Amino acid sequence: MAVYTEVSDEELQAFIGEYAIGTVLACKGIAEGIENSNYLLTTAQGNFILTLYERRVRREDLPYFLGLMSHLSAKGVACPVPVEGRDGHALRELCGRPAAIVSFLAGMWPRRPTAQQCHALGAAMARMHLAGADFPMRRANDLSLDGWRTLHRATQGSADRVQPGLAARIDGALAELTEAWPRSLPSGVIHADLFPDNVFFLEDRLSGFIDFYFACNDFLAYDMAVALNAWCFERTGEFNVTASRQMIAGYQSVRRLEPAERTALPALCRGAALRFLLTRLYDWLNTPEGALVRRKDPLEYLARLNFHARVADASGYGFD
Amino acid sequence: MAVYTEVSDEELQAFIGEYAIGTVLACKGIAEGIENSNYLLTTAQGNFILTLYERRVRREDLPYFLGLMSHLSAKGVACPVPVEGRDGHALRELCGRPAAIVSFLAGMWPRRPTAQQCHALGAAMARMHLAGADFPMRRANDLSLDGWRTLHRATQGSADRVQPGLAARIDGALAELTEAWPRSLPSGVIHADLFPDNVFFLEDRLSGFIDFYFACNDFLAYDMAVALNAWCFERTGEFNVTASRQMIAGYQSVRRLEPAERTALPALCRGAALRFLLTRLYDWLNTPEGALVRRKDPLEYLARLNFHARVADASGYGFD
Repeated sequence: MAVYTEVSDEELQAFIGEYAIGTVLACKGIAEGIENSNYLLTTAQGNFILTLYERRVRREDLPYFLGLMSHLSAKGVACPVPVEGRDGHALRELCGRPAAIVSFLAGMWPRRPTAQQCHALGAAMARMHLAGADFPMRRANDLSLDGWRTLHRATQGSADRVQPGLAARIDGALAELTEAWPRSLPSGVIHADLFPDNVFFLEDRLSGFIDFYFACNDFLAYDMAVALNAWCFERTGEFNVTASRQMIAGYQSVRRLEPAERTALPALCRGAALRFLLTRLYDWLNTPEGALVRRKDPLEYLARLNFHARVADASGYGFD
Repeated sequence: MAVYTEVSDEELQAFIGEYAIGTVLACKGIAEGIENSNYLLTTAQGNFILTLYERRVRREDLPYFLGLMSHLSAKGVACPVPVEGRDGHALRELCGRPAAIVSFLAGMWPRRPTAQQCHALGAAMARMHLAGADFPMRRANDLSLDGWRTLHRATQGSADRVQPGLAARIDGALAELTEAWPRSLPSGVIHADLFPDNVFFLEDRLSGFIDFYFACNDFLAYDMAVALNAWCFERTGEFNVTASRQMIAGYQSVRRLEPAERTALPALCRGAALRFLLTRLYDWLNTPEGALVRRKDPLEYLARLNFHARVADASGYGFD
């Protein structure tokens, strides 16, 4: 739930005047996206999404994100498409913030994903990985090992306030992953944040991906590791191996995972769990009381990290 | 900013199945309305608003609110129109809450209302008052004198935590208004919450009213008193008599205020200021820390109450 920046009528009219998308009929702040201010913009031509980029999204990364959405969409991967202004630029400024209008993607994110939806996600993720292969821009994953170390340093003094022993547990996991992290695997453009709220469905058909603001170049199988963490645990905390098996099967129906990717999967899953444990922990410790943001529980990802630490090999995720 | 209830895919599909509004393409929580959960629902037929009624809106009042919107709309007053399901009912249930779908009203609310918009509001308010004259249902204003006394009792023990002397000030204002409150004035259906965020414009044309969930039968001029409080003070606290004069002129271009209404205006304005002072004070004292609601400053309305207390007669509001 976001909407941080309030846009005045005059600013909005002036901004929209730069586009050829018809007169504005409505502009409503929507509860989508944690990091940015999102508005559902209705014009004579239909619905659009207007995003003002707030904290955490670096201005210099925006051409990568917007370029990627245009690239993927041109390759048939359904996602919001940046709309260019009359001057050919999609990235503009509004209320002192970088801002863009993207097309409206129909669909709803699944509140309780089914195994069938996990299969659809796997297949669509693989198609996205293939479609990204010739995207010419590059962006390093700033939330991989180095980024985790930075977050650990920033949180280790306070982590035990959330749970005694947490700082030491993170320290141990980081040391272990420094050893276990793959040196080389098939790489390319990954979404890196494939949570259910970033994947839209119309009934059981996957209608597209949104929120590419963590996208980067990294191991393709790491995208799968994030999604296994985000989609395959029940609300009660149990791992749902049926969901996981379906996601992997869906992925492999489009792109076969290589033996090295399969071997690396448990480590990649531990890394993905640690990544969300650390960012949630950082937010937990740094969100001011009364902020209009629902803090997500970091310990949910400690439990997932602990689960992955007990997985001996990829068969634990339902690989046949 | 609201959205309290999360609707699952299955619940939404089952609910929408009761309507003939086409297949659902999207459903996004919107930051509109403080009291209820609002979703912008996009179907093959266009945009709608889905509202789940949360705290404060009493189920037994909903037929009045929904009936009023249908009535006003049929009389040419632009507002959301409740959409009936296949069984002819507009009021249904979703996630254990009363729920309704209403038509999408184009427009945006003015962040900084102009005097011209105040004139348009006055005229549209008067047209709404005339259109409501033959609405057959009745609902008492539960936020008039009796309601203020209840809120005062609930807050007087803690009010001085917000500002020393506040409880005594409210006590004095209540006693004074008990004497000064008009016994009889032209009455009818009023909106009772005509803040800028409930009045939509397309450029400078008023496109309609939303959020009728405080509507009731009361003195028509009390609606004006609420709007004078809500629209005619600068952010710095000064009263803008030009805006006020325009609002009154707009109103009188449609319906002339009677001498008794003119005489009563300062008392009605004090009452309206006290009403928002009290409800904001109550919310301020009763909103849990960390709730996803921005608390509104009650003292803003203490300042307005103090302003009105110094107004000798209606000429203070720009009456000629």
